Amino acid sequence: MSHPERDTRQCIVDTAERFFRDIGYLKTTVADIAKALRMSPANVYRFFDSKKSINEAVLERYKREQEEAIALIAAEPGSAAARLREILLVSHRLNAARFSDHLRMQEMVCAAMEESWDAILGHIERFDAVLHRVIAEGVESGEFRAVDPVQATRCVRTAMIRFMHPLLITQCERIPGPTAEDLVTFIMSGLEPASSVAA
Amino acid sequence: MSHPERDTRQCIVDTAERFFRDIGYLKTTVADIAKALRMSPANVYRFFDSKKSINEAVLERYKREQEEAIALIAAEPGSAAARLREILLVSHRLNAARFSDHLRMQEMVCAAMEESWDAILGHIERFDAVLHRVIAEGVESGEFRAVDPVQATRCVRTAMIRFMHPLLITQCERIPGPTAEDLVTFIMSGLEPASSVAA
Repeated sequence: MSHPERDTRQCIVDTAERFFRDIGYLKTTVADIAKALRMSPANVYRFFDSKKSINEAVLERYKREQEEAIALIAAEPGSAAARLREILLVSHRLNAARFSDHLRMQEMVCAAMEESWDAILGHIERFDAVLHRVIAEGVESGEFRAVDPVQATRCVRTAMIRFMHPLLITQCERIPGPTAEDLVTFIMSGLEPASSVAA
Repeated sequence: MSHPERDTRQCIVDTAERFFRDIGYLKTTVADIAKALRMSPANVYRFFDSKKSINEAVLERYKREQEEAIALIAAEPGSAAARLREILLVSHRLNAARFSDHLRMQEMVCAAMEESWDAILGHIERFDAVLHRVIAEGVESGEFRAVDPVQATRCVRTAMIRFMHPLLITQCERIPGPTAEDLVTFIMSGLEPASSVAA
């Protein structure tokens, strides 16, 4: 069964992503995207009401990829500590692969921060939900100290921002600092009973 | 004893700071600053070889203020934990007072990140030196766990970036998260023996 509508939508997103990477979000126009697809701008507007909406769809795909990856890790067997560690490191690796050394990609992200704040908040909420699940399980089983899981989730996410935020991933590379692994170990030592950790 | 050379230098920095705040770093020219001081641009250039150098002097003053404040706290009596907590919170408060809601100030900082990276690295080094002193004392006295103080210093500074980095202070205000106090408590629980903390 084919989905011509969905295929066209997908082609628009793919083409837009290529333009955003190659010439930058700001310089790309909806007319550029339409022309590359040999369609009229009006046809692009049937699917997306603005360049901003196309950008949201591009970033949506990245976020979904990350959200699916960490949801799978959360659902694995194994200790809460091992899963939390893996969730943080995989999230960092996906963001780093996408945003290191891609100044153009950062332009897209900056635009989204200006224009699509709700989409970003939605992603943070879904990220927090996965962290929360694992932290609450660890508290429940006694593997973690008796922290408040909601508060601990926000603290862990905030403490990791240097390795998640697209702009910081590049900027902080030039600052002497811990590796992502080192920081995760340090953060986790705040959750685990002191006897089980070595920072 | 008066220091006319130093006074002139100071006036240039004061005037530049006002311009950077009012019309922004990018739009301000050395000619604007000279004109406001009723001097020739050539006279400004006797003190600063570029607008970049003037910006460095403006930011230098902020950083010195912060560095002096935290060095005083580090030298106080009291527990390492109390001093570390105070150093982090005072640093946050000074940065927040300066950079929250001042989009113009953020323009100055962004320019410095592009143009004056060494000055920023120097500030981070001096900040780390103060943190390191207090953390090493806490490890020495057994108040903190036996962490490596160099590594712990970098982890603490990195985990706090959301409350230090001028761009994040504003951006993250709109994200559900811990307060600075909450995050400091969480971070410190990674340093202290488990029995003494409650997150």
